[in-house]
Amino acid sequence: MASDLCAIGVDLGGTKTVVALVNSSGKILGQTRLATAAKEGPEAVAGKISGVARDLLQRAGRPTAGLGVGVAGQVDTAGQAVRFAPNLGWHEVPLQAILQQQLGLPVVLLNDVRAATWAEWLFGAGRGCDDLVCLFVGTGIGGGVVSGGRMLVGSSNSAGELGHLTVELHGPPCHCGNRGCLEAIAGGWAISRRAREAVADDPRAGAPLQAMANGQKDGLTAELVARAAHAGDPLASRIVAETAEALIAGSVVLINAFNPGRLIFGGGVIEGLPELIRDIDRGVRARALRASCEQLKVLPAELHNDAGVIGAAALAMRRFGRQ
Amino acid sequence: MASDLCAIGVDLGGTKTVVALVNSSGKILGQTRLATAAKEGPEAVAGKISGVARDLLQRAGRPTAGLGVGVAGQVDTAGQAVRFAPNLGWHEVPLQAILQQQLGLPVVLLNDVRAATWAEWLFGAGRGCDDLVCLFVGTGIGGGVVSGGRMLVGSSNSAGELGHLTVELHGPPCHCGNRGCLEAIAGGWAISRRAREAVADDPRAGAPLQAMANGQKDGLTAELVARAAHAGDPLASRIVAETAEALIAGSVVLINAFNPGRLIFGGGVIEGLPELIRDIDRGVRARALRASCEQLKVLPAELHNDAGVIGAAALAMRRFGRQ
Repeated sequence: MASDLCAIGVDLGGTKTVVALVNSSGKILGQTRLATAAKEGPEAVAGKISGVARDLLQRAGRPTAGLGVGVAGQVDTAGQAVRFAPNLGWHEVPLQAILQQQLGLPVVLLNDVRAATWAEWLFGAGRGCDDLVCLFVGTGIGGGVVSGGRMLVGSSNSAGELGHLTVELHGPPCHCGNRGCLEAIAGGWAISRRAREAVADDPRAGAPLQAMANGQKDGLTAELVARAAHAGDPLASRIVAETAEALIAGSVVLINAFNPGRLIFGGGVIEGLPELIRDIDRGVRARALRASCEQLKVLPAELHNDAGVIGAAALAMRRFGRQ
Repeated sequence: MASDLCAIGVDLGGTKTVVALVNSSGKILGQTRLATAAKEGPEAVAGKISGVARDLLQRAGRPTAGLGVGVAGQVDTAGQAVRFAPNLGWHEVPLQAILQQQLGLPVVLLNDVRAATWAEWLFGAGRGCDDLVCLFVGTGIGGGVVSGGRMLVGSSNSAGELGHLTVELHGPPCHCGNRGCLEAIAGGWAISRRAREAVADDPRAGAPLQAMANGQKDGLTAELVARAAHAGDPLASRIVAETAEALIAGSVVLINAFNPGRLIFGGGVIEGLPELIRDIDRGVRARALRASCEQLKVLPAELHNDAGVIGAAALAMRRFGRQ
């Protein structure tokens, strides 16, 4: 791949979109943030992305492999269509064709969490490793798996739905319709729900947390729980301990199933509670099979919010870049 | 691969060993069973395998690619050494070198459950499928995963320890040292343990089961529980329902993580309770992500006790067979 090759990476979320010019070393050369006007429809959303991409390309004046789009939703195996993106309200949108027509460049779509996994693998905490699992613990939980030097995609491009590992048979209900999913205990929305329940169950113990939230029930966010735990609040600390326990159980599942050399954690919940990495590392070594942990390193993700655009661009370079 | 090529497959267990001559279509042309004299040491065990293999090869008079050995234990990534085989009491045994010296044929080792997965993939319920998971539910639970047309091995050749998926955070203790593993609820030993506990907790409800076991506590096996459930015993039926519930949860984990096109169940517990396949099929479609189930078929394994030797021979043919 030519060393000055670059590509456009797009991180298309329900409320905002980032469009970035990325080089073949995974460095962002320029980027623009947009509000995602999902209600105006795919053509309009694509039009804004194309406009910004054209500006970035003009300023760059470099050979461009193409454009990769990480979408918060389900993408078809060929990387051509958004099958379902709940946050965008889109069903079966042929976004590849729309963008290709607007831009005159080759385009590939992929799931946004898989894009972030590509980025961590090629340029982040997973560099040089052929067997890794990324787990992104934000409001929801998603992940990606590289095994034997290849990104796993599965039979219908859905592999890596790691937020929906059942870790508690009769556990709390999940947004997915099942119970006891990892996300339903350790995702940001679940931490917030547990905080509200704990405060309601024991208002006296919950008083400091409630006060930190200025008395607003909506204020009991995962981020607030993290801050309260760091300040020594016992109830918040208990919620964090339960979160760690679920993440350890989910990690044991991933380690015993995939035998990764690296288990990489990113996302807002982890960034708010970075000590979870150490707790998980210690926990899995006590609970996963010894043979499955032999090569294991538990690491924080390195690319933070940039992972999506970097990974989407990297896939476009791999797919369309000349050797 | 020449159509008349064949290989020797060995299924090396703690108490018995099967040595078979297998052709390139996965057909067993001849086989011999031996007691495994593990206490006499690796040289002696290998010597008996070699003797039987020589007989089979002589009678066959065909070109032979080599010999594959499925071992009930942990094998190194290169397929050269048995790292740890608890049922054989072996640690770090260079079985490949020993057998190659005795036989003058190339030898490859692999884990026995992975051998069975190879067999189901190439010649059984997984034929023609690039994305599948095999789960063998016997006394213990093990598995294997094929993703994107490749067998997953992981960073230290331990991928696929699917009996040790945590499905119940504070569940019953497992032999592995952890709690709440799938095997600790749905493995044959765990079914037997739950039967003993249930009979002890409620001797009246447990009386029919106890009678079927001729009053022997040791008689409360998974196989007996299956027979009693089929005969309508309520306590046994409850134990089977709990087993199904755990297998559904474990299957949901596998489906959401790997997005397989086929989920294949084998092993003694499944053979004793074949209706579990239907229960699991129904259960996962209600509980796994819809996108992850799109291509999914839930199927019984086809090769039963032959899978180990067939898969081990198939790997030897792939590894050593001339094109």
